[in-house]
Amino acid sequence: MVVRQGEPFLAVDWGTTNRRVYRIEGGAVVRTERDDRGVTAVQDFAGEAAAIRERFGDLPMLLAGMVGSNIGWQPAPYVPAPAGVGELAASLLHLDERTAIVPGVSTLADGRPDVMRGEEVQLLGAVASGLTPADALLVQPGTHCKWAQMRDGRIAGFTTAMTGELFALLRAHGLLAAQLQGAVTANAAFREGVEAAKRRDLAASLFGIRAAKMLGTRDDADAAAYASGLLIGSDVAVRLDEMPDAEVLILSGPELGNLYITAIEAHGRSAALIDSHAAFVAGILAIGDAIP
Amino acid sequence: MVVRQGEPFLAVDWGTTNRRVYRIEGGAVVRTERDDRGVTAVQDFAGEAAAIRERFGDLPMLLAGMVGSNIGWQPAPYVPAPAGVGELAASLLHLDERTAIVPGVSTLADGRPDVMRGEEVQLLGAVASGLTPADALLVQPGTHCKWAQMRDGRIAGFTTAMTGELFALLRAHGLLAAQLQGAVTANAAFREGVEAAKRRDLAASLFGIRAAKMLGTRDDADAAAYASGLLIGSDVAVRLDEMPDAEVLILSGPELGNLYITAIEAHGRSAALIDSHAAFVAGILAIGDAIP
Repeated sequence: MVVRQGEPFLAVDWGTTNRRVYRIEGGAVVRTERDDRGVTAVQDFAGEAAAIRERFGDLPMLLAGMVGSNIGWQPAPYVPAPAGVGELAASLLHLDERTAIVPGVSTLADGRPDVMRGEEVQLLGAVASGLTPADALLVQPGTHCKWAQMRDGRIAGFTTAMTGELFALLRAHGLLAAQLQGAVTANAAFREGVEAAKRRDLAASLFGIRAAKMLGTRDDADAAAYASGLLIGSDVAVRLDEMPDAEVLILSGPELGNLYITAIEAHGRSAALIDSHAAFVAGILAIGDAIP
Repeated sequence: MVVRQGEPFLAVDWGTTNRRVYRIEGGAVVRTERDDRGVTAVQDFAGEAAAIRERFGDLPMLLAGMVGSNIGWQPAPYVPAPAGVGELAASLLHLDERTAIVPGVSTLADGRPDVMRGEEVQLLGAVASGLTPADALLVQPGTHCKWAQMRDGRIAGFTTAMTGELFALLRAHGLLAAQLQGAVTANAAFREGVEAAKRRDLAASLFGIRAAKMLGTRDDADAAAYASGLLIGSDVAVRLDEMPDAEVLILSGPELGNLYITAIEAHGRSAALIDSHAAFVAGILAIGDAIP
């Protein structure tokens, strides 16, 4: 058994570009550090794990995130949704007697393939800790925004949208890039983008940003906020439509979280932010406790 | 008067990267050449016009396309839709007694700003020449795909979608780029993308390309065709829904045109290709004849 219930262990949330290490004792975090040693910065994963143990204590270690992908230490499996703490704990990838990687989650619902790796710990922890009800729609905004439908505390299904990546691509390259250098806040232009997104006609709405410049119908300083509203609004419009009654909770920092709250409220729904770090810790504790 | 009815003149379809010059006599093209002297390659537009006259004859000249934009010779106006040959001919930008630029067309229908510059000549010419009926839905595929609703031979309204540009961005940058280097043909994977696009959930469907690779549910050689089907299918799904009864005609070469035909047929509609060069010539002739 990697982790013995109640005994100290190390948890590592090891993503593509960042990594956060937690030392957990008696069910609580006693020390944590974040650094930029994400999987793309690391070649010798065994060496990194040894270095973590030198700094945080020679303890059992549970790893989650892209460390379990084909660009990480070793590919961990995907557990098919619906998946809960029990399924994840039963499918750990054991690297040695004291080191294991949490599996990702996959779905093929309605013929739509989707995967997550790392987000599942937060999602299950959000429910395990009582931060969210056992039935809810959880959102993890970002480059690849995850929307998870939780039922009875398990991940029943989920959808990933390339919302943040599309915004970054448009801001860095192509016709709209020069227009999209302004600040993004949840202002009137952002809300205008959310309204336009209700048409679910993204590629045409995006060209409208160019046309608005040509016709002088919008101050170009507002173009980035409008584009963000369009992209986040497109994501929100479809997901809320698919899950009309679910309570919506957002695992995010306040900046991006408030954009999502604004977009969700524009659809007559409400949403609240919850602490994604607390959710991760609760999730990894629950998985550790459930290891068979 | 720039052009006298029935007398020879030069027409220049002067786009961002390419340019085509036509010498027209007695209502027919007697000589045409295409080169890469698009507006981004040119500084001295008056000098270029003089060089064209040296090669094609010292004749009146009608220019259309991005030459009339703020990156061209001089910004020509936008004529608001609905617009026909008469409105365009009445709003030419006269640079001198023998040289004029055709205006673009704009719309603000339903609060959606949109603009075109260059496409209007083809659209009006397609009807003027009898290539299309006076009431039809015309498509000009490409980087920024134009869809124009023609009524009584005039441009009643139109929508531009950044379909081609989004595909190019995704193929050149970001998460999916490595997967999207394969060929695009109207194959089963393309049609699968068109079907998925009916969900009108583009940012999520795009992530599905990554997930399909992770789960091994689609041969990666098919990813580019699937992505193209998704993007073209998204465009087609919205536009056909907006115009349920219109006959659809495509101003395009056969390669891109056949992708659009395949996507349109997947919605139970039919479409045909028409010759965009012939349409341009008919359009510029009609505008020349209508100069007041």
